[in-house]
Amino acid sequence: MGDVSKKVSVEVIKRLPRYYRYLGDLADNGIVRISSHMLGEKMNITASQIRQDLNCFGGFGQQGYGYNVVELYNTIGDILGLHNGHKIIIVGAGHLGQALINYKSFEKRGFTIIGVFDIDKDLVGQHLGGHKVLHMDELESFVKNKKPDIAVLSIPKASANNVAQRLVTCGIKGFMNFCYVDIDVPEDVCVENIHLSDTLMTLSYRLNCVKNKDI
Amino acid sequence: MGDVSKKVSVEVIKRLPRYYRYLGDLADNGIVRISSHMLGEKMNITASQIRQDLNCFGGFGQQGYGYNVVELYNTIGDILGLHNGHKIIIVGAGHLGQALINYKSFEKRGFTIIGVFDIDKDLVGQHLGGHKVLHMDELESFVKNKKPDIAVLSIPKASANNVAQRLVTCGIKGFMNFCYVDIDVPEDVCVENIHLSDTLMTLSYRLNCVKNKDI
Repeated sequence: MGDVSKKVSVEVIKRLPRYYRYLGDLADNGIVRISSHMLGEKMNITASQIRQDLNCFGGFGQQGYGYNVVELYNTIGDILGLHNGHKIIIVGAGHLGQALINYKSFEKRGFTIIGVFDIDKDLVGQHLGGHKVLHMDELESFVKNKKPDIAVLSIPKASANNVAQRLVTCGIKGFMNFCYVDIDVPEDVCVENIHLSDTLMTLSYRLNCVKNKDI
Repeated sequence: MGDVSKKVSVEVIKRLPRYYRYLGDLADNGIVRISSHMLGEKMNITASQIRQDLNCFGGFGQQGYGYNVVELYNTIGDILGLHNGHKIIIVGAGHLGQALINYKSFEKRGFTIIGVFDIDKDLVGQHLGGHKVLHMDELESFVKNKKPDIAVLSIPKASANNVAQRLVTCGIKGFMNFCYVDIDVPEDVCVENIHLSDTLMTLSYRLNCVKNKDI
């Protein structure tokens, strides 16, 4: 496989989790091997797209045999850096935070929630999905001790940058940011934003295009 | 502005909501005009990227004056198809559904939640954020009567395709899909997926790259 990460485009990277998901489902269903043609049919992309994407990481698959499902699943897991596991904290235990705490798919892919934080006195001390909600005052000491690598921000946007700053200072390197604001972090810190209103607006644009085509 | 939608790339479309958000914040703060240089600094992109993006939709802005904030905000809102408003239903009133019901940013951008559905007898009949949760049996008659255009799917993935099918049949044209499965819909139906595990895996990949660079 080697160190190929630098050559791979963002678009390919964004597609890898989808490959991983489909291959995981195939493996769960006992499928041992699959051709790029069949995989493409399932994923609604072309076989040549699949071959092109996977070639970025070296040659998998054999002419006439196809891909070994479990092998490819594990290799993509390696490429995605899943096999060492990740420790996550959820900052903000409102409805969204609680939805994430109860989201089973995270654990299955090696993302373990190890701490949940809030400032609401009705929430602090409560047990949610097996986690005792801690007060934000305990954030720094917790992070220094337990060394989570990813923080999920599900707090009001007004607090987002301040909390992000605190987390960066005590060593957090990755954020999944649900706050409706871009957070300002150093270059070596990775942020994946989930801006729900932006997604709805993109959907609105596409609906408009379809409607205008109809007229 | 004209019918320019067909020429515009997906990447530009994905950036429009971010422009809209920044311009909205500027307008809220009473800023009347802004140069592409200043806007770029705020948004952490280059002035030339901004000019290039906005030129896709015709010429805004004037040499030496910059952009009129409210005018550009409104024009981008038009391009995004926000000004006619959208009627949304939330299908699945668990934690995630409830987070969305209470999400204030939707309403502000013209997305009005008009119905909430679930099958859980503990939820049906309850009032959540001003909405009485309706049973899934009422889905078809509700959609036919009230004509929402967007359905948000926040249900277990096992039901996703069946429910999507029912909604397409009674006329839903847009989906915001939180289920961890790709839904199968006709070509004229738009889907925006929010696959939270995929986002975490992309973050994992990026964290891995940063770490390997350090070594």
